[in-house]
Amino acid sequence: MPTIAPTLPRIKFLLEPTRDEWTQQTLANMDTILLDHSNCERKAASVALKFMSRYPSNTKLVHELTHLAQEELLHFHQVNQIMQDRNIPLAPLNAPPYGAALNQVVRRPEPDRFLDMLLVSALIEARSHERLGLIGQHCEDQELAEFYRSLMESEARHYGLYWVLADTYFDRSVVMERLEAIAIVESNILSTLHPEPRVHS
Amino acid sequence: MPTIAPTLPRIKFLLEPTRDEWTQQTLANMDTILLDHSNCERKAASVALKFMSRYPSNTKLVHELTHLAQEELLHFHQVNQIMQDRNIPLAPLNAPPYGAALNQVVRRPEPDRFLDMLLVSALIEARSHERLGLIGQHCEDQELAEFYRSLMESEARHYGLYWVLADTYFDRSVVMERLEAIAIVESNILSTLHPEPRVHS
Repeated sequence: MPTIAPTLPRIKFLLEPTRDEWTQQTLANMDTILLDHSNCERKAASVALKFMSRYPSNTKLVHELTHLAQEELLHFHQVNQIMQDRNIPLAPLNAPPYGAALNQVVRRPEPDRFLDMLLVSALIEARSHERLGLIGQHCEDQELAEFYRSLMESEARHYGLYWVLADTYFDRSVVMERLEAIAIVESNILSTLHPEPRVHS
Repeated sequence: MPTIAPTLPRIKFLLEPTRDEWTQQTLANMDTILLDHSNCERKAASVALKFMSRYPSNTKLVHELTHLAQEELLHFHQVNQIMQDRNIPLAPLNAPPYGAALNQVVRRPEPDRFLDMLLVSALIEARSHERLGLIGQHCEDQELAEFYRSLMESEARHYGLYWVLADTYFDRSVVMERLEAIAIVESNILSTLHPEPRVHS
């Protein structure tokens, strides 16, 4: 996290680390994981655009999330390219319950909604970073392992960025308290492995 | 339209050219137009992402629209940069009726919906291309005029691309007939100048 790290205090984004059963499920189903990862990158770009549409006056947010969306689209293109090289067709894929379950913690009235959306995004990015890192570490296919390692630096920047944005627009004590509450929910959702292989199963 | 033009038949995307009253309204309100243009670029990127989310198996569409979304985000960033240099703050801005009115022609059942959405997008991009070109031609602020001229090549590619995608997934005769019908609606919507200065007023 070269540009963001200095401002990040010691916080636990992820209360529970991913367990081995996820890694085993994932490594045994890399074709499906590639497709799901492609969807994740596209959705991450969409989320960034939604933030900019909803909070158009927040210059720092718009500036940073434009860059983030560009990176997500680049990763989306890269995953799709890898799939094409391996003759894995693009196809619809149902999402795991993770995202929808996590979004249920978002309070509706503003500015709570804004804070919660930033922290949910930070947690999703943090979990993606952790899990894509596990693929980079354990995948025996060296091309894939290298690709996933190459994403680490920007993925870490992304979850740091959402935290920095929360810290920009809200008091740190409020951010920390809410982050810890949502982090508990996040880890609880993942405490049961979803039967279908997904980045967030 | 360097890469797309050879496959484009002679078609009238825009039945009626933009009238002078729009150009006058626009040139007298360039600060507002920059802000609206920024919104248009962000929305154009969102539309591309929506297409990819809704039609994830269409490889050609996904490939081409990823590139288009990246370009729209680059333009979004460029307009925002120009605004920042001129101390024009980012702010919410209500949209003109154009987009919502045009989207009313979209039939709901598939595959009609897909075709109509592609053609509506082609028409919006074609009109943007025409109008941003008018700014490039007539704006006395040379920095702005040059910026708008620099967008012409990719903006032309974008409306060509939506047409090519329609032509890829549907019979040309069906595409042509429907395009002409929607083009009539598009020109009708703009036949009365919207009182607020906008790219699509």
